[in-house]
Amino acid sequence: MTRRASSGRQAGTRRSVCPIACTLDLVGDRWTLLIVRDLFFGKHRFSEFLESDEGIKTNILTERLKRLERSGLVDRSRYQEHPPRHEYHLTEAGRDLAPMVKAIFAWGCAHLPGVSRLLPLPPKWKTG
Amino acid sequence: MTRRASSGRQAGTRRSVCPIACTLDLVGDRWTLLIVRDLFFGKHRFSEFLESDEGIKTNILTERLKRLERSGLVDRSRYQEHPPRHEYHLTEAGRDLAPMVKAIFAWGCAHLPGVSRLLPLPPKWKTG
Repeated sequence: MTRRASSGRQAGTRRSVCPIACTLDLVGDRWTLLIVRDLFFGKHRFSEFLESDEGIKTNILTERLKRLERSGLVDRSRYQEHPPRHEYHLTEAGRDLAPMVKAIFAWGCAHLPGVSRLLPLPPKWKTG
Repeated sequence: MTRRASSGRQAGTRRSVCPIACTLDLVGDRWTLLIVRDLFFGKHRFSEFLESDEGIKTNILTERLKRLERSGLVDRSRYQEHPPRHEYHLTEAGRDLAPMVKAIFAWGCAHLPGVSRLLPLPPKWKTG
């Protein structure tokens, strides 16, 4: 069964029925799409996300991962029992964020001076 | 002369040199790309942005428009002298956000239940 993404808001509390606004309610912040980027680049563990250059704080990372899971964009699975440790993988809806992340990447490369265009591109954008 | 977009941050204070992170520093929030959406849809005046369904507050709109102008994504021009009133138009760098906005729109249409797929599409996404 394909799980649908969920805005995590009651329908009545949405800002509008605009698909852009509803999508930004899920991923419209400075951090969420960086975690998605890392997932596309093959990172799956909490400690790996912490290592990224932007220096995300643990409380922000925890909150964003929970939100991504609640929104149906990320699946969490346990890879170690004692102590419990989890891995995160993009769902189908999460992998479908690839065109959005690629468009953001392309815009930054085209318009912002001093960014690195040499980031190792994910071998397959659709692989979570 | 083509004005380059600017992150509005000193190079040394950027979170990283990742083009995705640097772009999100400019447009990674719940409101900025809704203003950009409205500009693509032909809105150019402060009062027109306020009328959008999401109900943006005047202080947030003021701050985001200033940031968009500072970042080189929007040009401001005066259309009335007494009292002074301004119009806002996307620059070339701002119009180049079209693929990003379109990708966000497409993802929302594909994955979020209850959104409207019947929004009047801008006649030309590259027109600011």
